[in-house]
Amino acid sequence: MIPSFSFARIPYIIFGAGKLNELYNIIPKFGKNVLFIIGGNSLKKSGKWDDITSILENKSINFSSTSIYSEPSPSLVDEATAKFRDKRFDLVVGIGGGSVIDAGKAISAMLPKNNSIKNYLEGIGEKSHDGIKVPYIAIPTTSGTGSEATKNAVISEVGPDGFKKSLRHDNLIPDVAIIDPQLMISCPPSISAACGMDAFTQLLEAYVSSKRNPITDTLAYNGMKYIGENLLLACSTGSSDVSIRAAMAYGSLLSGITLANAGLGIVHGLASPIGGMYKIPHGVVCGTLLSEATKINIEMLQKQESGGRKGLKKYAKIGALLKGKYHLEEGKINEFCSMLIETLEKWTDKLKINRLGKYGITYEDIEKIVEKTSLKNNPVNLSNEYIRNIVINRL
Amino acid sequence: MIPSFSFARIPYIIFGAGKLNELYNIIPKFGKNVLFIIGGNSLKKSGKWDDITSILENKSINFSSTSIYSEPSPSLVDEATAKFRDKRFDLVVGIGGGSVIDAGKAISAMLPKNNSIKNYLEGIGEKSHDGIKVPYIAIPTTSGTGSEATKNAVISEVGPDGFKKSLRHDNLIPDVAIIDPQLMISCPPSISAACGMDAFTQLLEAYVSSKRNPITDTLAYNGMKYIGENLLLACSTGSSDVSIRAAMAYGSLLSGITLANAGLGIVHGLASPIGGMYKIPHGVVCGTLLSEATKINIEMLQKQESGGRKGLKKYAKIGALLKGKYHLEEGKINEFCSMLIETLEKWTDKLKINRLGKYGITYEDIEKIVEKTSLKNNPVNLSNEYIRNIVINRL
Repeated sequence: MIPSFSFARIPYIIFGAGKLNELYNIIPKFGKNVLFIIGGNSLKKSGKWDDITSILENKSINFSSTSIYSEPSPSLVDEATAKFRDKRFDLVVGIGGGSVIDAGKAISAMLPKNNSIKNYLEGIGEKSHDGIKVPYIAIPTTSGTGSEATKNAVISEVGPDGFKKSLRHDNLIPDVAIIDPQLMISCPPSISAACGMDAFTQLLEAYVSSKRNPITDTLAYNGMKYIGENLLLACSTGSSDVSIRAAMAYGSLLSGITLANAGLGIVHGLASPIGGMYKIPHGVVCGTLLSEATKINIEMLQKQESGGRKGLKKYAKIGALLKGKYHLEEGKINEFCSMLIETLEKWTDKLKINRLGKYGITYEDIEKIVEKTSLKNNPVNLSNEYIRNIVINRL
Repeated sequence: MIPSFSFARIPYIIFGAGKLNELYNIIPKFGKNVLFIIGGNSLKKSGKWDDITSILENKSINFSSTSIYSEPSPSLVDEATAKFRDKRFDLVVGIGGGSVIDAGKAISAMLPKNNSIKNYLEGIGEKSHDGIKVPYIAIPTTSGTGSEATKNAVISEVGPDGFKKSLRHDNLIPDVAIIDPQLMISCPPSISAACGMDAFTQLLEAYVSSKRNPITDTLAYNGMKYIGENLLLACSTGSSDVSIRAAMAYGSLLSGITLANAGLGIVHGLASPIGGMYKIPHGVVCGTLLSEATKINIEMLQKQESGGRKGLKKYAKIGALLKGKYHLEEGKINEFCSMLIETLEKWTDKLKINRLGKYGITYEDIEKIVEKTSLKNNPVNLSNEYIRNIVINRL
């Protein structure tokens, strides 16, 4: 029986090499006054930002821009909205990695408000966002968060009492997502690796989520196929190959669509407190925890007398998929679950995903992390002891 | 290499048995003044319409309603919009089969205009619709057209110079689609059969379409899995089983999403002129032509020296899928293509899908039909001779 589900709208998606050029045809549909949110480095260094601004000037499009140098904090969003609120923009365009796309999403949502984003963050503020925003176009330059297709912007305040929380509303799904794999060519291997692991984590967590539905299942499976075939290549010999970058960008897009509709699991449950307490890239947290968390989820499912089989079968199907097998032979569930864990461990190793200790996280911090961790839609209940073990094994 | 593609927004989807009740929570988000477009028969006969109206009255929601008794014509849409234009509705809700959903979509799009829909129909009028409409909620009661997820409303004028043409704009995708399989339980076997064949045709044509992309591919494949497993049951012993109706409704929804983004093929190319010239249900046209058209497409692909293999492999994968095989063994492409044709012929036979002759179409009419037929996004070019043969073989 297909379970009851709801499925949010998706952005109007424009996908393909060179499709950034469509931006100039789309802007006039929204107006003539545009705010660009861009990253601090690569877009400018590559000369791409100069190209964009000269086309905008040729087309007499009025624009302002601001650069984002880190994962967005409440004060970053508040300052940007205070600075630009009076300009009455018709459109916000975010071009960059996950931080930039989230910052743009948050700014587009906060421009029509007259107070701090903190009031609207889940678990922090007391207000709910009403979804009224300036239209927003998201143009990712990394293949990771899938934020171009999600309804939330993740906002972090890093420190001992820090947090990583979402501004969320169905209307915050970007109006348009332009996914141009040519923009990803210059992404360095370490960032491609962390982002790719994040995208895969999102797909796998959505695929086994307790909130999954048949649409998220089929899209997540398809996304894992593309990322599985291309992740190692995208971070090595294939980094300049636009077809490999396209496959990664496609998987990342699907990770956003699926997480927005099926939710996530323990890896992202841990990523919120860890990302709030320490300065550590979100993709690295996910990448470093994924194989351990998957191993423990599988162990817990194997311990269940019944009921665990369905979840194990799903993990096994992905183990098989990553070995190029689209069909799970009867009686091979445990074997393919092991293969999944092995593959994820191999990726973590080959992609040199840092351990948590590298970012100053110590054994003494673990209790505080575990206290703040939620299971989200993890397929199996995990005691604090098990959650602790996931972190310890990746210190 | 993933080809360039664009993907339109989808409605906010609410899926599940009993989910019609969500309607009353959603209406207030749009306003308090609602126009209902409903069918002529089953909703009223079943007592469901009485239930709906008494809930609306209890909740003090102002509403008007109008019934649709056939596939919508320009005059039907023009009369409804003329009658209701001054009432300034906040929302249109269509509850019924494909004709009702399309009529509601067209009426919601024409209420803000001051002239005939004919001016805006593709290939008929000279204007383009601008997408400005009254918000629209689609609630299908059959599993067929997938119109709850598409951006077009099909409008027919039946007669010797008749037509079947679309009002189309990305913004005409319904704002919300409520898909409640309980509403489909009362659908009679002959209608369930024709609608199910239409949905399968849409999925298969989108899957092999020249405009397909990886998202439409994976969704179409998934939809065909569900329809393949449930079509015969839904039209016989399983007609009252809500899980079987849910599977059909799910497949039909995916057929709408995929056709809106990948286009259709020769079956729908033929359905336009045939549906315009004769009074014949759309699902019957598609259902009766599907196996013949698939056979001829496959024959043509087999004749291509190279290049046909990719298309044949896709057909073969569906042949395998319908036999419960999710994996296509090497060297078995032709075998599974034959199995696909056999399965479609078996369905046509078991479901007693009428031949075209039953609706007065004769050998003499064929030339006129072929003249007006477009190939749409058929995977292979077909000469008029081949198109003629498809029709002749189903007279």
